[in-house]
Amino acid sequence: MHGLILLAHGSRDPAWADPLRDLTQRVAARRDGPVVLAYLELAEPAVERAIDDLVAAGADPVTVVPVFLGAGQHLKADLPPRLDACRSRHPGVTIVQAPPIGESEAVLDALAAAIVGEPGPGAAGT
Amino acid sequence: MHGLILLAHGSRDPAWADPLRDLTQRVAARRDGPVVLAYLELAEPAVERAIDDLVAAGADPVTVVPVFLGAGQHLKADLPPRLDACRSRHPGVTIVQAPPIGESEAVLDALAAAIVGEPGPGAAGT
Repeated sequence: MHGLILLAHGSRDPAWADPLRDLTQRVAARRDGPVVLAYLELAEPAVERAIDDLVAAGADPVTVVPVFLGAGQHLKADLPPRLDACRSRHPGVTIVQAPPIGESEAVLDALAAAIVGEPGPGAAGT
Repeated sequence: MHGLILLAHGSRDPAWADPLRDLTQRVAARRDGPVVLAYLELAEPAVERAIDDLVAAGADPVTVVPVFLGAGQHLKADLPPRLDACRSRHPGVTIVQAPPIGESEAVLDALAAAIVGEPGPGAAGT
């Protein structure tokens, strides 16, 4: 079972995560296997907790997808040692840090289209 | 002339903004009028500077599009008074704070598709 974690920064404002929860549901509807929203800071669950829970449920591998456009210090410096600590706790499990979603051409194209108010991809086939 | 500002958080890491610069170019290619990338903090230009420059170049209105998924304190509490100060400096110019891009269904759908590795919207018509 391939577990997927959508990793966001986190905010003290609960409403901040509404679009992320929406996104998580959309991803879950498009794939088999569990999808969990987790955070780097300021909100729960932390990424470590989400990994532990997925592994306890039998997930292997676990892929952590940063819902960030760019990779800054959070993804380059903070996250890798935190994932290493998770790997030490779960030595038999493959835990992968995926590139941030902003490295996807499809994502950048869709964002550009939405910003200028063009029809979304759902309209392309109609 | 309608000026557009893509507003990101900002990071001390210059490479963090690479996908944002890419996005800015994609938006500029899809519309008439100037498109400027600006930041809330930690990087230049600040949103105030970008607004001043666009107004000096003759832009009216100026729309500020937050390249954020969720609206947290940055967009709810920090940005509005900063835009009010810009409006005071430019009393004849319409300056609009747009919703964050994460409120767009098309954006969330495209993100979900990219995360699960489906073909992007560019493939739909081929």
